[in-house]
Amino acid sequence: MDERRRKALISSISSEELIDVVHEMETDDAADVISELPVEEAKQVLDGIDRQESIAVQKLLVFPEDTAGGKMQAELASVIETATVQETIEEVRKKSHEIDNISNVFVVDKEGRLAGAVPLDKLILADPETPVITIANRDPIKVRTDMDQEEVAKLFQKYDLISVPVIDHNGHLVGRITVDDIVDVLEEEIFEDFYKMAGLNIEARALDPAGRAIRMRVPWLLLNLCTAALAASVVKLFEGTIEQLVLLAVLMPIVAGMGGNAATQTITVVVRALALGELTFKNARSVLIKEVLVGFVNGCLTGGLAGLAAYLLGANIMVGLLLFLAMIANMMIAGLIGSIMPLVLKRFKFDPAISSSIFVTASTDIGGFFTFLGLATLFMKMGIL
Amino acid sequence: MDERRRKALISSISSEELIDVVHEMETDDAADVISELPVEEAKQVLDGIDRQESIAVQKLLVFPEDTAGGKMQAELASVIETATVQETIEEVRKKSHEIDNISNVFVVDKEGRLAGAVPLDKLILADPETPVITIANRDPIKVRTDMDQEEVAKLFQKYDLISVPVIDHNGHLVGRITVDDIVDVLEEEIFEDFYKMAGLNIEARALDPAGRAIRMRVPWLLLNLCTAALAASVVKLFEGTIEQLVLLAVLMPIVAGMGGNAATQTITVVVRALALGELTFKNARSVLIKEVLVGFVNGCLTGGLAGLAAYLLGANIMVGLLLFLAMIANMMIAGLIGSIMPLVLKRFKFDPAISSSIFVTASTDIGGFFTFLGLATLFMKMGIL
Repeated sequence: MDERRRKALISSISSEELIDVVHEMETDDAADVISELPVEEAKQVLDGIDRQESIAVQKLLVFPEDTAGGKMQAELASVIETATVQETIEEVRKKSHEIDNISNVFVVDKEGRLAGAVPLDKLILADPETPVITIANRDPIKVRTDMDQEEVAKLFQKYDLISVPVIDHNGHLVGRITVDDIVDVLEEEIFEDFYKMAGLNIEARALDPAGRAIRMRVPWLLLNLCTAALAASVVKLFEGTIEQLVLLAVLMPIVAGMGGNAATQTITVVVRALALGELTFKNARSVLIKEVLVGFVNGCLTGGLAGLAAYLLGANIMVGLLLFLAMIANMMIAGLIGSIMPLVLKRFKFDPAISSSIFVTASTDIGGFFTFLGLATLFMKMGIL
Repeated sequence: MDERRRKALISSISSEELIDVVHEMETDDAADVISELPVEEAKQVLDGIDRQESIAVQKLLVFPEDTAGGKMQAELASVIETATVQETIEEVRKKSHEIDNISNVFVVDKEGRLAGAVPLDKLILADPETPVITIANRDPIKVRTDMDQEEVAKLFQKYDLISVPVIDHNGHLVGRITVDDIVDVLEEEIFEDFYKMAGLNIEARALDPAGRAIRMRVPWLLLNLCTAALAASVVKLFEGTIEQLVLLAVLMPIVAGMGGNAATQTITVVVRALALGELTFKNARSVLIKEVLVGFVNGCLTGGLAGLAAYLLGANIMVGLLLFLAMIANMMIAGLIGSIMPLVLKRFKFDPAISSSIFVTASTDIGGFFTFLGLATLFMKMGIL
């Protein structure tokens, strides 16, 4: 159950109904629902469900939501290491109506520490009298309660896991995480990158009330206001140049805008490649050189077209040349900034995606205004414009 | 195995080694690898692996990569509906070393049509002499070979599936899809939205050679050039106004830029909500109204700050007022366009994410220049500027 449905559920039904619903849930979902209730109502629900279940849920509530402990459920099938295959099958029988997707039975020692895991197909094929530990995988992949959910998700992807046992600091088996919970984690992580690039708080949702939406977006917009002011101050430097030729004010947004979009293209492929581990500091140099080269070629193409169009529409040929040169320069800047910024952020342990759209647009606005108006000033000084 | 590792593998080893490697793979991965080989080498590898495997792989090669048929593997455990539980367990024994994660045994009729599915835990608990069909789920969730991979992924998420049987048009069981393949599909789909928003071909990668990167990005940049020219032509309309007050050219990028970032925030939450099904045409109206309201409030805040700063830095107070009003208007435009554009695209069966960054920046550039310079012209005509 995702956050949205959880919230809709909570707000739409009474405490009594909630007790019935929570009772039917797996412990991890129950903990998620209860963690969002007001304290009083949470207590009421915990008192309402059966005692053992309540204790299991309360144990889960202590773990941060984005760790293995926060994602795990208490429901699992486990036997002590001295059990036989027959006794293990009995455990599956007992648990099969309350647990979905039992794919492994876990084996624990007499202190409750994880000692192994037996996949169901092995269990089916073994002789009933065999001690279960002899057919168990003695060193199964496991995670600790404090492992970050993103790392857990990577383990699932790497080893194609269906479920994984969760242990505490002393090796005690305390829960399991199933692949369906991990699918949601993976989605969340990618959407987070997406959001950070747009300058959005990761909690923001389309259906948020207006007040919440405003509070969440204002900080980024204020940051953007500062970078926009910086870009404007570059234009301010060249007020005299614009005064001599107002056409420059007409054309300068083209140079800045094309740089912004080229940089967005670069940064998007780079952030994705960093997220998937395709791009490392080792191969970064070749990507960087390539992006600057791509900027150069695309700048020649689009800048050539733009310059030609300006000339054909009646502008001075030197204005066309100016547009051509400035677009080449700014699209090279776009390739450089778009590939270097996420790498630098990562190097200093920041998230490479943080509000790239704001910083990148700022860089290409500044770059665009500076090269275009700067070159214009130079041309004027040289007497060719 | 993802595309990148597949390509690295293919380019790094000889055909003979490739035969060995492909032989060890599941049929779906083998088909993916072979589909990327040059025709001659593909034939060589198909001839090299064992005949039965070669036939199974060739059958998979006919399905488009983004359909259920393209994602499925031929490896599965199945029995005829007249089989007993004991015979079904025998099938698991035969298949268990060649198939990972057997979670269900499928039951077929004598024509090979899917008749049911038995999860392993039910199999363990049943009497060996029972006919397997009596403990099978007679109407399991199944997909047809031509179902789009995104729909398949949604089924997995909705029902927390581990694997799903794939049938052809006549109901014959032809393969199965496991959850690990679906995790990759989900990632791909989200990254696709991400890419479309940035104006990137979905095949583009950071490690592409420069020539390929240029070819893939140029179409979007040319489109961006057209929208940028449109925005410039709006500025052109007001050349006379700028001539009278060059400061307008200095400040106009602030109005446009702030609108662009506000619109990016809106469009990102809206595209996400559409992707997750949180936003529908039913609740669209309230989101739209909210976004315009958010634009108004954020416009007041940031526009007020910007206008005040301009005034304090020495600009005419009417220029400050102008900045304030134009930013409110443009951020309301941003909220409107940012929420309406993805909805309209979806209504007409386009992807809501298609190159939003280009269209949205165009709208807010045009909106920003028009309101700011238009108001300035009006103020001048009224004699207050």
